[in-house]
Amino acid sequence: MKNAYQELEQRFRRVNLLRQAVGMLQWDQSVTMPPGGANARGAQLAELKVIIHEIVTDRRTEQLLLDVDISRLGSWQAANVREMQHIWSHANAVPRDLIAARSKACTACEMKWRTARASAQYKQVLPDFKNVVDLTREVAEAKASALNVSAYDTLFGQYAPGMTIDEIDPIFDDYLSFLPNFLGRVVARQAAGPPPPELKGPFELEAQRQVARHLAEIVGLDFASARLDESEHPFSGGVPDDSRITTRYSKDDFSEAMMAVLHETGHAMYERGRPSEWYEQPVGCSRGMVIHESQSLIVEMQACRSREFFQWAAPMFAHAFGGSGAAWGADEFYKRATAVRPSLIRIDADEVTYPAHIILRTQLERALLAGDLLPVDLPGAWNEKILQLLDISPSNDAEGCLQDIHWYDGAWGYFPTYTLGAMAAAQIFKAAVGENPMILDSITDGQFRPLMRWLLSNIHEHGCLFSTQDLLIRATGRKLDPEAFKSHLHERYLS
Amino acid sequence: MKNAYQELEQRFRRVNLLRQAVGMLQWDQSVTMPPGGANARGAQLAELKVIIHEIVTDRRTEQLLLDVDISRLGSWQAANVREMQHIWSHANAVPRDLIAARSKACTACEMKWRTARASAQYKQVLPDFKNVVDLTREVAEAKASALNVSAYDTLFGQYAPGMTIDEIDPIFDDYLSFLPNFLGRVVARQAAGPPPPELKGPFELEAQRQVARHLAEIVGLDFASARLDESEHPFSGGVPDDSRITTRYSKDDFSEAMMAVLHETGHAMYERGRPSEWYEQPVGCSRGMVIHESQSLIVEMQACRSREFFQWAAPMFAHAFGGSGAAWGADEFYKRATAVRPSLIRIDADEVTYPAHIILRTQLERALLAGDLLPVDLPGAWNEKILQLLDISPSNDAEGCLQDIHWYDGAWGYFPTYTLGAMAAAQIFKAAVGENPMILDSITDGQFRPLMRWLLSNIHEHGCLFSTQDLLIRATGRKLDPEAFKSHLHERYLS
Repeated sequence: MKNAYQELEQRFRRVNLLRQAVGMLQWDQSVTMPPGGANARGAQLAELKVIIHEIVTDRRTEQLLLDVDISRLGSWQAANVREMQHIWSHANAVPRDLIAARSKACTACEMKWRTARASAQYKQVLPDFKNVVDLTREVAEAKASALNVSAYDTLFGQYAPGMTIDEIDPIFDDYLSFLPNFLGRVVARQAAGPPPPELKGPFELEAQRQVARHLAEIVGLDFASARLDESEHPFSGGVPDDSRITTRYSKDDFSEAMMAVLHETGHAMYERGRPSEWYEQPVGCSRGMVIHESQSLIVEMQACRSREFFQWAAPMFAHAFGGSGAAWGADEFYKRATAVRPSLIRIDADEVTYPAHIILRTQLERALLAGDLLPVDLPGAWNEKILQLLDISPSNDAEGCLQDIHWYDGAWGYFPTYTLGAMAAAQIFKAAVGENPMILDSITDGQFRPLMRWLLSNIHEHGCLFSTQDLLIRATGRKLDPEAFKSHLHERYLS
Repeated sequence: MKNAYQELEQRFRRVNLLRQAVGMLQWDQSVTMPPGGANARGAQLAELKVIIHEIVTDRRTEQLLLDVDISRLGSWQAANVREMQHIWSHANAVPRDLIAARSKACTACEMKWRTARASAQYKQVLPDFKNVVDLTREVAEAKASALNVSAYDTLFGQYAPGMTIDEIDPIFDDYLSFLPNFLGRVVARQAAGPPPPELKGPFELEAQRQVARHLAEIVGLDFASARLDESEHPFSGGVPDDSRITTRYSKDDFSEAMMAVLHETGHAMYERGRPSEWYEQPVGCSRGMVIHESQSLIVEMQACRSREFFQWAAPMFAHAFGGSGAAWGADEFYKRATAVRPSLIRIDADEVTYPAHIILRTQLERALLAGDLLPVDLPGAWNEKILQLLDISPSNDAEGCLQDIHWYDGAWGYFPTYTLGAMAAAQIFKAAVGENPMILDSITDGQFRPLMRWLLSNIHEHGCLFSTQDLLIRATGRKLDPEAFKSHLHERYLS
């Protein structure tokens, strides 16, 4: 006879295995599926998600969560129940019909967005977008009253469980007062010197693929239990022993593909470091998107846009691509990788101006959700804000409010995790290097084991045992705090 | 308010979508998954199969099948309910624990078989194999008493729904009396002439891949909704608008890879021709493995080992591989593709001796199931029978009873479908060509549209509307009958 806890484990094991199946089918959709498969795949995924939702919101699940006696459980088990309750409360707070209606509206809106972005015509997506905004508000308000948090926090909390906008506001405000002066100094300083010489392509794709694989291996990926493929947008998927990372190659420039591989490898290493005895339970999952993004950015931004990394990587690149001359020096790679310039497109932004893109989006999505900004007024509000923050103006909405898929396909409350992740990355990396200076030295030799070992024992193997803030406090001595990020920027860009 | 029929459709739609997910994950496992992913994939697949089993054996499903009023349904709907009942009765006839125990035993046995075959040591797999035999018998007997058919028919009936061993026996007996004399004449005749000159490799893999793709397209596969990949054993998977076929290339010989592609394309075309409005329902699925195998063999054996096909293919091959000289003539390709010689390995056997391999296995698996043959005596019984049937002797068990995975991984009752499929292929192809002589003429030009159009309207688009035998009667005027196959062999090998 199973007790309530055991039965809950069995139910959530099923949920997690189904999620794994969903993830693998989505990987296939992005990487291998021929276009003709879209309808069938859509039906398969929708059905799997409905089954997951049914299991989580089943009355039996609710009863078991009421019955389970946490006082008799160990700390991992108790944390597991806490995560189950979080999943249950989010799934259960919204009527099923409303979820289905929003999901349908998002699918329709995303399709319209694709053509609207291609033609830079916001008005093409406006009717569908209004629908998404209204239904997102309805979902958020239903959740807010059930979960007793603010509407925006119900969205943000899906990606950063346990965190609230009240924690973000002071951090973002702080950055807004830091940015103008700092950015001006960096831009002036970089303008004072000669620009680094450009690398001249073309760079053979097969050589790029081999270097990309080598970089992933250097960081720690083992291809006996991983794959590196190509997709329109780089991403990381799969399961711990079957990591699926992707990148995108261009003949003219290999740097972007390599940085994408390093970024996705950071995500994959986090998944691989999760506690294996809890792989299939909620408590064994990653601690939300703030920490996830911190792990990819530690590899990409902290470790691999450093002078130390390019000391090792520059000769390796030169050898792999048969490059020689001034443009192939470590300093030149470093300069190119740390060039700062206000720009219109978020995904191309440097690490200094990136937070401005995020803060803009966070402010606007909150205003849209609250009804303080109407969808029809979004392009104007966007353009006004980007002018105010970075002193630049989009020439059309494809360079403005149409550039990202997130709002149109339903990922509301997601944007803040990018910048919070960048800040957490600086904070965690500083703590790691402070504890073990070998971490930085070894990167000069293309050795990531000291860094990865530290991350494994301080972040990865804790799964969801602690909250995001507690995890940061244990790993770095303090809550999420923008100081480490700002001092990282100072050191990298002004010292 | 849904009626019973509508609710059944909804349930079996879910079952079919889950099966599609299972199929896609199995494709990934065979084609793209890194070895490290095996455990996680095993867990995902097992859970999905348990969910499918739960839905099918749910009391509500049983109640709905009792409640549904077939007299008020159209013919497709009524046939749909009949197929649902078939699925339900098979799933429900066996206790869940027994299914799980057998599944576990098969997984363990398959792993042992891999090493046992590699070292040609039958005794290494014997303890696990005994277990599989015992549990298979237990399952078959449980089903036999629930379904009121013979134990062997419960196994065979999984792959050929509605057919029984009583229908096979006279067909196989007939072939056994036909074979010795016929085989002797063919071998003597082929020995009388000079052997066809061999093709000399190596043949570039990239050229082979392009030719393979071209062949699949010629037959009718559209790569906007299909993929061709590589795997250890060629297979066909996916869904109608996302066909996933595989082959295996060797530098020394391209013929096998090409024939495998043609074979798998035949399977894929059947799936693609299923009635689209019933894709997700049982009645819209293929009519079992006898018909499925007939569709692959019509393409591979009937259409593409013909003189007509090589008239078109030989110059195409010569062009693609830069071949020239006597070995590249159409006649020489035809001779190589139709060489007959008793051999030990089933999958390498020619179409004349292939049925002997199948009859041997069918007889032995029936004897094992009945307890008339003990697992420990299998190697001796095998060797005795292959000597008697084809006058050859394995030098070890890897060339004998260890060669096929089927019994060790649990696919009992499957073997007969290969030869019944070959016979159905000859019968259907003869009917098609008889009705439309253009079918054969157009193959001389590398045109398969007339053949595929005939198969679509006579076989594919009927799904499971008719039983196997009724489908054959409608398409060819008679039940499954070995005459067409024998006359095909006569014509190809002795005329």
